[in-house]
Amino acid sequence: MTIGVGLLGLGTVGAGVASILTNPQGRHPMVADLALRRVAVRDPQRSRPVSLPPGSLVTDPLLVVDDPAVEIVVEVMGGLEPARTLILRAISAGKSVVTANKAVIARHGEEIAAAAAERGVYVLIEAAVGGGIPIIEPLKQSLGGNRIRRVSGIINGTTNYILSRMADDGAGYGEVLAEAQALGYAEADPAADVEGGDAADKIAILAGLAYGGTISRASIATEGIDRLDARDVAYAAKLGFVVKLLAVAEHMGDDAEGGALLDVRVNPTLLPKPHPLAGVNGVNNAILVEGDPVGQVMFYGPGAGAGPTASAVVADILNIAGIHRVSGPQAGLDPLLAASRWRRCSLVGSAHTSHRNYVRLRTLDEAGVIGKIGTCFGDAGVSIQSIVQFAGHAGAAEIVTITHEVLEARFRAALDAIEALPEVQAVAACLRTL
Amino acid sequence: MTIGVGLLGLGTVGAGVASILTNPQGRHPMVADLALRRVAVRDPQRSRPVSLPPGSLVTDPLLVVDDPAVEIVVEVMGGLEPARTLILRAISAGKSVVTANKAVIARHGEEIAAAAAERGVYVLIEAAVGGGIPIIEPLKQSLGGNRIRRVSGIINGTTNYILSRMADDGAGYGEVLAEAQALGYAEADPAADVEGGDAADKIAILAGLAYGGTISRASIATEGIDRLDARDVAYAAKLGFVVKLLAVAEHMGDDAEGGALLDVRVNPTLLPKPHPLAGVNGVNNAILVEGDPVGQVMFYGPGAGAGPTASAVVADILNIAGIHRVSGPQAGLDPLLAASRWRRCSLVGSAHTSHRNYVRLRTLDEAGVIGKIGTCFGDAGVSIQSIVQFAGHAGAAEIVTITHEVLEARFRAALDAIEALPEVQAVAACLRTL
Ligand SMILES: NC(=O)c1ccc[n+]([C@@H]2O[C@H](COP(=O)([O-])OP(=O)(O)OC[C@H]3O[C@@H](n4cnc5c(N)ncnc54)[C@H](OP(=O)(O)O)[C@@H]3O)[C@@H](O)[C@H]2O)c1
Ligand SMILES: NC(=O)c1ccc[n+]([C@@H]2O[C@H](COP(=O)([O-])OP(=O)(O)OC[C@H]3O[C@@H](n4cnc5c(N)ncnc54)[C@H](OP(=O)(O)O)[C@@H]3O)[C@@H](O)[C@H]2O)c1
Repeated sequence: MTIGVGLLGLGTVGAGVASILTNPQGRHPMVADLALRRVAVRDPQRSRPVSLPPGSLVTDPLLVVDDPAVEIVVEVMGGLEPARTLILRAISAGKSVVTANKAVIARHGEEIAAAAAERGVYVLIEAAVGGGIPIIEPLKQSLGGNRIRRVSGIINGTTNYILSRMADDGAGYGEVLAEAQALGYAEADPAADVEGGDAADKIAILAGLAYGGTISRASIATEGIDRLDARDVAYAAKLGFVVKLLAVAEHMGDDAEGGALLDVRVNPTLLPKPHPLAGVNGVNNAILVEGDPVGQVMFYGPGAGAGPTASAVVADILNIAGIHRVSGPQAGLDPLLAASRWRRCSLVGSAHTSHRNYVRLRTLDEAGVIGKIGTCFGDAGVSIQSIVQFAGHAGAAEIVTITHEVLEARFRAALDAIEALPEVQAVAACLRTL
Repeated sequence: MTIGVGLLGLGTVGAGVASILTNPQGRHPMVADLALRRVAVRDPQRSRPVSLPPGSLVTDPLLVVDDPAVEIVVEVMGGLEPARTLILRAISAGKSVVTANKAVIARHGEEIAAAAAERGVYVLIEAAVGGGIPIIEPLKQSLGGNRIRRVSGIINGTTNYILSRMADDGAGYGEVLAEAQALGYAEADPAADVEGGDAADKIAILAGLAYGGTISRASIATEGIDRLDARDVAYAAKLGFVVKLLAVAEHMGDDAEGGALLDVRVNPTLLPKPHPLAGVNGVNNAILVEGDPVGQVMFYGPGAGAGPTASAVVADILNIAGIHRVSGPQAGLDPLLAASRWRRCSLVGSAHTSHRNYVRLRTLDEAGVIGKIGTCFGDAGVSIQSIVQFAGHAGAAEIVTITHEVLEARFRAALDAIEALPEVQAVAACLRTL
């Protein structure tokens, strides 16, 4: 029972997918039932690392989407348009879609899911988060018995590579970024990675699945690593922490109508060294899911790259092929695989969240400064875990404080009072801490 | 659309499952569609941590299996019989089965799978390996595009707890075992855990799914931790390794008819400290899957306990409920979810496998001994990574060698020559090394 597959794009991911589909030996036997019918690219002259069935390469993506021999459309071209339009067109033609495009799903996921539900087809997105790591399917199909407390992830490989190098070698952000670009681990335009937008896209997707609702992508508080000082990475290490770009979605409670109140955010964050995510280095990704009654489960692996991402895309194709075999006509959708929404989700403002903090202050190097800072924290009801003075230069000192967990609003009040102290020259850095 | 569920057993796992099913708020909405109809126990008078629908508790398991209102039978009583017979009876009544029972699946999995395929029902086993960690579903549904090179796991929580304590506190095996029994982390009869049989059951299951064939449980070379000396844990640490009870299934190639040749085994194993599995401590479990093209992905979490195991059982129930919604009558089975076998698997003898080794020799404390030992290894073509003398007592020395990767047969030949040296009193320990 052959199933026709069409690819929109034959770049890094697309070529990886084509290479699996055209070399089925030793893989699950259903791979051999998948026939690559048509592939759309921009430049048909470019040489490709995979050999395709003759005549399958086209430049008009509509020839893929509209081909009656294509039953599953795989969108691996990237970008918002024409990707969104092509996905919607495939859906309205009654074709299930597989996509690796976190940007389009984070921004247009609701519209796409509604169209798919209406038409009775699947839109699967395993490759959109965590590269080769199975995380979307487990969230949909293996953790439904739980009340999810929190999903936290290192889900951007570029920034994790940069942070790992900064921690290992004490190198500065700019220097490591340039090196990552030279190695192909960072794009020429690194903004989406280093400013946190890519991680925000992905946590929007994970939170939507974990909590069963649509997450307003625009409301996700997002801070990248582009203003991170190598000094803070080094001080954190001395205090027993590593700095990671962490994307978090946490259940804060329910509103009066039973909707979920969530804190969803992306921040450079200090993790205590024994934390399960603290050891995730280089371009690897990991997602920690905490739920009741499962406790903590973690998924770890390569967050990007042709092979891993193609593995995830093919998993989705196989899942659609598998369910096609059993679904009667007019069968409706498997609610687990389709990941239908079942709850309203709203994001809470960060002033209402509580967490630990790392603060680095630049102060005059005078006796009594630490006491005054401690008093400001104490007066605001912020209790402190440690306060350490590091050597500054030219009559200045650097004072680093780790607070205990405290309401953000209260912490901000303490910082205002500290900033007003005549001995304090600047609040030089302020980072969330687990 | 309510689906009737029957439980065989209401012990640790059964009570955890009942507690999820009877408290659906905040979980996936499909949990609310699952109705707990009947529960079999041995002792109906025992007090239970969960309140059940009145009249649902019975002592005859057949009243659960045969109840027409029970559509999915959940076997969480344990043991081989009557579990096997009850599972087969549920299948022949056309009911899908969920079980947490690795012993029955590792030994009677083929018979059970054949019966289920014949009758067109599912037998799902997420809870049988890795407690709450989603590993069975990801192997079946998320990695099918890969050629799996190796599956390695820390999949017995009891032994991992004992090994972690031995490493942290330098305590002896017997002492830590007694403590683990007092804390409820080890059974009164710990044989299945400490002798490696439980891990062998589980790797048989994982290998069967990863390679698509039936694994002969009786052929799995199994060595436990019951003869492990605290000294070797300590020496390993000094050399940069941790000792873990590792279950491994590795693809060694294909035979002439395309069947897979596998090396499947359970051994206390030295892992280099940076290895992803080396940091898995206490009762946690983790499974590392290596495949082409995904690379390395790891699944980590609590390997046992009421809550985590119940989370896995409910996941399976939800998957069956989900697919029931779409399957037409006579639809056949989803080949991914049903995990149909598609390849013959045979195990290779360990003489044909290659790996690194840790060897501890007890020798006379004389000059020249290390040289003679080195010569024996060299003559047999075994190259050595390190050879270190540790202080012995009363004129004896302890010499620890780590070899490079070497064919087992060649390594054994070297050991025979070394044992014959007059200065060598004993080969005191010999452990596989990654
Ligand atoms: N790369 C990764 O590791 C990774 C990991 C996870 C997810 N993803 C996601 O996967 C998607 C694809 O990424 P990629 O790295 O494979 O991108 P890529 O290497 O840039 O490949 C894009 C492909 O799409 C084709 N294409 C683009 N616009 C087109 C158009 N209008 N008409 C026809 N063909 C068009 C290109 O054709 P030409 O070849 O002719 O230029 C190229 O083959 C993106 O959404 C990305 O976010 C990538
Ligand atoms: N415990 C874990 O963390 C864990 C983790 C993974 C997998 N598992 C597997 O899950 C299964 C159950 O483990 P468990 O720890 O929940 O066992 P358990 O606490 O001993 O519970 C067994 C239950 O089955 C009932 N039962 C046993 N034989 C019966 C019979 N012949 N007729 C009627 N009822 C019978 C017992 O009744 P009474 O209550 O009246 O004695 C009890 O409720 C086992 O296969 C185990 O390997 C357990």
